[in-house]
Amino acid sequence: MNTIKENISVVKIGGNIVDDPDALQAFLADFQKLGGKKVLVHGGGVMASKMARQLGIETKMVEGRRITDSETLKLVTMVYAGWINKNIVASLQQTGCNAIGLSGADANVIPSVRRSPEPIDFGFVGDPDPEKVNTSFISQLAEHSIVPVFCAITHDGNGSLLNTNADTIAYAVATALSALYQTTLFYCFEKEGVLKDRNDPQSLIPTMTPAECKTYQQQGIIADGMIPKLDNSFKAIRQGVSRVVILHAQNLLSGKGTILSGTDQSAY
Amino acid sequence: MNTIKENISVVKIGGNIVDDPDALQAFLADFQKLGGKKVLVHGGGVMASKMARQLGIETKMVEGRRITDSETLKLVTMVYAGWINKNIVASLQQTGCNAIGLSGADANVIPSVRRSPEPIDFGFVGDPDPEKVNTSFISQLAEHSIVPVFCAITHDGNGSLLNTNADTIAYAVATALSALYQTTLFYCFEKEGVLKDRNDPQSLIPTMTPAECKTYQQQGIIADGMIPKLDNSFKAIRQGVSRVVILHAQNLLSGKGTILSGTDQSAY
Repeated sequence: MNTIKENISVVKIGGNIVDDPDALQAFLADFQKLGGKKVLVHGGGVMASKMARQLGIETKMVEGRRITDSETLKLVTMVYAGWINKNIVASLQQTGCNAIGLSGADANVIPSVRRSPEPIDFGFVGDPDPEKVNTSFISQLAEHSIVPVFCAITHDGNGSLLNTNADTIAYAVATALSALYQTTLFYCFEKEGVLKDRNDPQSLIPTMTPAECKTYQQQGIIADGMIPKLDNSFKAIRQGVSRVVILHAQNLLSGKGTILSGTDQSAY
Repeated sequence: MNTIKENISVVKIGGNIVDDPDALQAFLADFQKLGGKKVLVHGGGVMASKMARQLGIETKMVEGRRITDSETLKLVTMVYAGWINKNIVASLQQTGCNAIGLSGADANVIPSVRRSPEPIDFGFVGDPDPEKVNTSFISQLAEHSIVPVFCAITHDGNGSLLNTNADTIAYAVATALSALYQTTLFYCFEKEGVLKDRNDPQSLIPTMTPAECKTYQQQGIIADGMIPKLDNSFKAIRQGVSRVVILHAQNLLSGKGTILSGTDQSAY
């Protein structure tokens, strides 16, 4: 029997928006209006770096990823799972959206594996496996109109929390949910999408395939933090997510941004 | 039709134990062994005060309660809902207890009312009403063998988080659950129970009624932080909780401590 799957949106909101109270409130108002089942994943790196300075903890980044020693793990858990997560939940509750804030440790919803110390020791950093995501728990919440709000903290199942890239959490959750739902993954941040010229919002690339992405990378048009975002996007599509859009937080409802498509793994 | 209610335990663990890694691990191992449905509520004031010193935030206490300005609200939300809550959840998950960490904002499970600024302005401090606790959500979790772990942060429903006394949260949750379950409330801390001489663990008062409590208070035997704990205890009993025990964290499984009983409101 063929059944039509229900829709679900997995929305990731980046750290620059989270750090801007007005932009965050506007985004949350739009998120509340977004129809159908939905999940929010938030970053928070900008606030974590500010709090690190306040606490005199040195921020060490390698390839855009934070080196997480035990002091930094404490810091990011406080900032992501505590301050940011609970404020987003309280704001959504105010708008009538029945949000619940979760780390990956809660109800073991996103177990992760600590990253190998070779070639770079990132410390307490983990990567989730979409096959281990507890989709039955997420779908039970969704069936009760409860909206999960995930911070970028997971755990290893052996008692240790792990700092985890929020883009990767969004990829893992969306990929896992695609077994149950017709899933759209939105990467929302402070730019219009993937831009040919990062300083020109008019230079939006409206659609992109893996082959085009490879060309843009070779031309140096796509670089830095955009690379893992696109990696996650194309992996999500290959693994069952119906649609991935990279877009400005203020365009969530219109969906205008860079739409990714194509499953050609060899080209990327 | 008379139906026998199932048992549930609401266990509150105090900040001094939470601040002692070995004592906390021993307590969590016992909590995991505790049979039947259960809920954990944790404090964290000791760690919050340490972090306040690290951040250069002044700790102001009046009648044992923290004055919570916006900086302090951020601090306690980071420490209680972030670091402590998620570490307890990760530790319980390690022991096979399927814990989920929650603030009162999550799924609107414990809405609170901000305390009146008169006679003392405590700032962002709220008090929960047992009648507003979302017992259907807690019992749904319990039916799925998911164990809620509450930190002492709630919200006002208007977008603001509120610092909330953990003893009071335990009272409100236990009282609310007593409509659905035969409920025992355990107040676990670093002493044997209510002591005649606070420096002599042998001076445990094994049972106490409201009238006896009043006498002890007049004699100065009961003072300070013990007074609100006993207030909450007798209120819980009057409002339907079957059993309240004040005890050392290491005695959770034996249940040895001060057992409160009696509903005589006038005597207290």
